[in-house]
Amino acid sequence: MQKKTIGLVGLGLMGGSLSIALQETQKPYYFIGLDHNPSHCKEALSLKLVDEIVTDISDLSQCDIIFLCIPVDGIISVAKQFTNLHPKCTIIDLGSTKEKISNAIPTKIRKHFVTAHPMTGTEKFGPTAAMANLYQGKVVVLCDLEKSGTYQQNVAQTLFEDIGMKLVYMDASEHDRHAAFISHMPHAISYALANSVMEQEARESIIALAGGGFKDMSRIAKSSPNMWEDVFRQNKENLLEAIHTFQSELKKCQKMVENEEWDRLNTWMSKANTLHNIL
Amino acid sequence: MQKKTIGLVGLGLMGGSLSIALQETQKPYYFIGLDHNPSHCKEALSLKLVDEIVTDISDLSQCDIIFLCIPVDGIISVAKQFTNLHPKCTIIDLGSTKEKISNAIPTKIRKHFVTAHPMTGTEKFGPTAAMANLYQGKVVVLCDLEKSGTYQQNVAQTLFEDIGMKLVYMDASEHDRHAAFISHMPHAISYALANSVMEQEARESIIALAGGGFKDMSRIAKSSPNMWEDVFRQNKENLLEAIHTFQSELKKCQKMVENEEWDRLNTWMSKANTLHNIL
Repeated sequence: MQKKTIGLVGLGLMGGSLSIALQETQKPYYFIGLDHNPSHCKEALSLKLVDEIVTDISDLSQCDIIFLCIPVDGIISVAKQFTNLHPKCTIIDLGSTKEKISNAIPTKIRKHFVTAHPMTGTEKFGPTAAMANLYQGKVVVLCDLEKSGTYQQNVAQTLFEDIGMKLVYMDASEHDRHAAFISHMPHAISYALANSVMEQEARESIIALAGGGFKDMSRIAKSSPNMWEDVFRQNKENLLEAIHTFQSELKKCQKMVENEEWDRLNTWMSKANTLHNIL
Repeated sequence: MQKKTIGLVGLGLMGGSLSIALQETQKPYYFIGLDHNPSHCKEALSLKLVDEIVTDISDLSQCDIIFLCIPVDGIISVAKQFTNLHPKCTIIDLGSTKEKISNAIPTKIRKHFVTAHPMTGTEKFGPTAAMANLYQGKVVVLCDLEKSGTYQQNVAQTLFEDIGMKLVYMDASEHDRHAAFISHMPHAISYALANSVMEQEARESIIALAGGGFKDMSRIAKSSPNMWEDVFRQNKENLLEAIHTFQSELKKCQKMVENEEWDRLNTWMSKANTLHNIL
């Protein structure tokens, strides 16, 4: 079986872990990497995440599959630079928001593109953060799939299934609304929680008391500001709506405590418990 | 060595796990349990968390050590019922807030009391939730320790060290302020986050996208409403202050997104990252 050539644009946590996962399928792949950070390129080579490094998007045009594992604004910019694509080339972007990407892809190469969002990640970043099993058992959302060529749809679906992912299909706009609630707004909360404690004079004494709940809730406040600034920018309206909804819920709690409406508070907490019946 | 008798008031996660941890020290203990829930009593016996069950607080007055592993209002009520205590009896309460307890203990038995808060727990409850290692490596805050008798101080410190805990000392009022930030307010956030999603029509489609971040942040929204209603009531003022601080931070984030102040947002996120240098 001839080796398929895979281009990886972005050699961080997502791109690096993808290489490990694909290598573990035992299918024959050859990985070509590209990253604007030269030390990431060196690390990716030495960690055997890629077989070679190139420096220009046009160097990837003959790849069978190209993954774009970079922030959303980078994906939109790179999408406009592809020329002379191999006729069966499949480009899969892993951006955290999808509507702007889906609309920004030039019509001429739209069929080559599959816009996907793997619902996974950690707070770590860079090639050294790459890990086996980042994708295993997790959901990947495939957006506006009817706009991709049939061949490209099949390539993407097979690849994601090969690395153990569960496929979910959605409109890009629906995805962005849902992702704001389940991922982007919770990041805003985690950052705000971390800063609430860091603003306190007694922060070291406070943090000495941190148990598992606080550690879990502040974990994603470790996430990359560059990546999340980009997500917040790309999904501004949905994020603001989700933050607003959350603020209303927290305000309810605050009012019930202020007014000592303990029975209502108990009912409100019991309702929150029911999330875990469907999570 | 003669067996020490340990009274456990409350046979849930905290009391049950304490029995497992103390049994693992291989020191000779005899456990007497009391719980207002008859099925908890049966379960605790069958799980060998206790050697016998009693039904009245006065049945525990000759114990060497009594742990109060019940909500704060229960602790305050029970503290007033002790009579004829064994002269060396040490009563240790594990309530989540400490100032009201510390002030409510009758002067006559104050020296018997050690008020402690182990910074650990899970979202589960009841005797079946009891687990080895709930306390291992975790912090226990000993409050207003100078008000306890020297003998009782030593008993409590040795016991907590025996089960692998790290001792931290604090005023009860300082503890309550800090616990509001590190534990109580984060619970309010987690409940509010869960309810924000449950309020959405598309909640099932939203939850289909849940990754590790959301799961971590909503985990403590599974916690017992009865326990947390009680904590919120007992620590009302500190909780409201912590919620207010958090709301201000989230509002900052919201405004920066609305005004597209991306550089400031990036700086704010980077500040949140620094929490993990001291956590």
